[in-house]
Amino acid sequence: MAMTMTQKILAKHAGLDAVTAGQLIEAQVDLTLANDITGPVAIREMEKAGFDKVFDRTKIALVMDHFAPNKDIKSAQQCLECREFAKKYDIVNFYDVGEMGVEHALLPEKGLTAPGELIIGADSHTCTYGALGAFSTGVGSTDLAAGMATGKAWFKVPSAIKFVLKGKKAPWISGKDVILHIIGKIGVDGALYKSMEFTGEGVAELSMDDRFTICNMAIEAGAKNGIFPVDDKTMEYIKDRVHRAVTVFEADADAVYDETYEIDLSTLRPTVACPHLPENTKTIDELDHIEIQQSVIGSCTNGRIEDMRIAASILKGRHVAPGVRTIVIPATQEVYLQCIEEGLAKIFIQAGAIVSTPTCGPCLGGHMGILAQNERSISTTNRNFVGRMGHITSEIYLASPAVAAASAVMGYICAPEDVK
Amino acid sequence: MAMTMTQKILAKHAGLDAVTAGQLIEAQVDLTLANDITGPVAIREMEKAGFDKVFDRTKIALVMDHFAPNKDIKSAQQCLECREFAKKYDIVNFYDVGEMGVEHALLPEKGLTAPGELIIGADSHTCTYGALGAFSTGVGSTDLAAGMATGKAWFKVPSAIKFVLKGKKAPWISGKDVILHIIGKIGVDGALYKSMEFTGEGVAELSMDDRFTICNMAIEAGAKNGIFPVDDKTMEYIKDRVHRAVTVFEADADAVYDETYEIDLSTLRPTVACPHLPENTKTIDELDHIEIQQSVIGSCTNGRIEDMRIAASILKGRHVAPGVRTIVIPATQEVYLQCIEEGLAKIFIQAGAIVSTPTCGPCLGGHMGILAQNERSISTTNRNFVGRMGHITSEIYLASPAVAAASAVMGYICAPEDVK
Repeated sequence: MAMTMTQKILAKHAGLDAVTAGQLIEAQVDLTLANDITGPVAIREMEKAGFDKVFDRTKIALVMDHFAPNKDIKSAQQCLECREFAKKYDIVNFYDVGEMGVEHALLPEKGLTAPGELIIGADSHTCTYGALGAFSTGVGSTDLAAGMATGKAWFKVPSAIKFVLKGKKAPWISGKDVILHIIGKIGVDGALYKSMEFTGEGVAELSMDDRFTICNMAIEAGAKNGIFPVDDKTMEYIKDRVHRAVTVFEADADAVYDETYEIDLSTLRPTVACPHLPENTKTIDELDHIEIQQSVIGSCTNGRIEDMRIAASILKGRHVAPGVRTIVIPATQEVYLQCIEEGLAKIFIQAGAIVSTPTCGPCLGGHMGILAQNERSISTTNRNFVGRMGHITSEIYLASPAVAAASAVMGYICAPEDVK
Repeated sequence: MAMTMTQKILAKHAGLDAVTAGQLIEAQVDLTLANDITGPVAIREMEKAGFDKVFDRTKIALVMDHFAPNKDIKSAQQCLECREFAKKYDIVNFYDVGEMGVEHALLPEKGLTAPGELIIGADSHTCTYGALGAFSTGVGSTDLAAGMATGKAWFKVPSAIKFVLKGKKAPWISGKDVILHIIGKIGVDGALYKSMEFTGEGVAELSMDDRFTICNMAIEAGAKNGIFPVDDKTMEYIKDRVHRAVTVFEADADAVYDETYEIDLSTLRPTVACPHLPENTKTIDELDHIEIQQSVIGSCTNGRIEDMRIAASILKGRHVAPGVRTIVIPATQEVYLQCIEEGLAKIFIQAGAIVSTPTCGPCLGGHMGILAQNERSISTTNRNFVGRMGHITSEIYLASPAVAAASAVMGYICAPEDVK
């Protein structure tokens, strides 16, 4: 039976020769992830269920990123709970303030995710690691509790949609535009419980950071996971990060897909998701004059070094428009350090932006840039639901770092080429 | 009648030849200050009182620093209120995210405070500007409302305590040690409603940043204000910042002081204020082995460039101890930029500290490092009251940047020379 790339990874981890869409399997996980919001819930569930050990103290990641450095006593207590758990079970990959970053940027950087692996995380954007050719998906805190204790998780094997990428990226087009374009096309439930498998000659056109962004937002189309084939860029990315054997899986040539879409990268335009759903996309050319009060450049979607470089290339020698609070958040300490070393941090400050320490921050309305009544933000984050970044009347427009930086300079949402 | 330096400034601003301690006067103010906590209260009070104009739109400073970048919807609404007020009255010195810094570091840097001026602020640490030879003091939001509307404020003329500084600073001694030593000596009400006038040959030993730190904490001894004589260092500091005529006041030689203390800078040791009052001071040598979970280097007390340099000199080539969240907060965008340019930001990140965008942050339990139950922080901030930085069982030890950095490296509170 022909299998998709995702199915092959699942079969392998379930100890089966083959799996088919719809089949229920129990699979071994290579890594479990929780953060300062979901961690405490999972920890309590695990202990409530009577478990008093973890399956592998080297395969559990706990990242304090959502409300850290802590914004209030409640979030401080949540981190404390994770800290005590990490100490009790001698968890190797516990990331606290100073070592931490936004989880989905941090884990690949630290080499904790690799091709062919199976990763579950109590965070919906765990699907990010599909960029490396891994199967990774978000689970509830209870499932994560079981995963931490037993190293196993149940899955219903997903069917898949194939996205054949072709052509060369048009100017200013990044992974963000690709995935927003796709979500605009298929809708927020367009890939419900399915794999989004990206393939085609256009894959080689995409940087690893592009791929992380694309897989990160697979969940915004309802997908179980997003996944890219493993190529030279993947191997180059993991070379100095992953120090264990990896298995590369490929979809069978005759694998069955529910649907196939062809995306020509050369025809894309910078794309913006208007309030209040990621599927409400328009190309930058279709937008009216929309003034903004805030621009956020960061998050697990777009807080990587390439995102920083693109934003800096636009902000360099320019200044953000009066009244636009521009918040740049390098996703990890490593990205932050690189921003300093490459002169990007200086460019941001000189442009009148602020540079935040790594945190999920405003993306989920956590802290570091919450919106007031009727305020509007352009943001490189992944969700623009009602009230997600603050007041229920506030609005979020999702876009690439290029568009977010350009809009910060002009004061309204615009194309990078419109910046004067 | 002989007058203190403070009394001379007050007399001048009240249009009187002389004033005496205890006298009630109405004085013209040169600047009013409010922040994102006190601003909205003052604004509402001003409008409630029927005022529909401000006394001088160039002499009102509004700084969004306490909970900005906003940590929640409530704080976002507070900033919005200030923003709308600033727009309505065309306030020149409105500092929002991207331009802002911690108010008491920002205002001198922007040249808004100068020798001989009278400044009121709806923030208790407004006394900071005494470092420049100004009279500045904290007022309630209602008094500030009247000040913004009329440019006038009522004062009871304070008597004064004289602090004669002498000798050269001992190694690692900074302004923070001087003021903690003094508060330890006279108590948190030791200068209640009095001026703390600093004088003597030791003044020349102190940098401007030392003086800002000392005057900043005058309120922690209950003082109405702290004030330094104007010397070459003062004039050098304001040279490129203040572009208006300044008047330099000096205390009369025969001015009367309630008390006089002599402080020999050469005999001081790094000093720490233990929980839960700034007067609970011990020298570093008198402290037991006190482990910490957090080290905060920043705030209106110690977030200036000299503070950053001292911290970096200790953190350079070292790493903070496991389990010590080390939070460095340059007080303004200018300080932040300088940290990048001088390589300090890189040192901090490489040492495993985080660098926050300018904010008051954890100092007042705002955000960016709130403590959980039973956690302990060394901090360069100015108050160690019960629960100020988070949970009611948490503890704050106040110290200099040198001690805070050294303690971060060792994991317990220690002297800079103890760092290995």
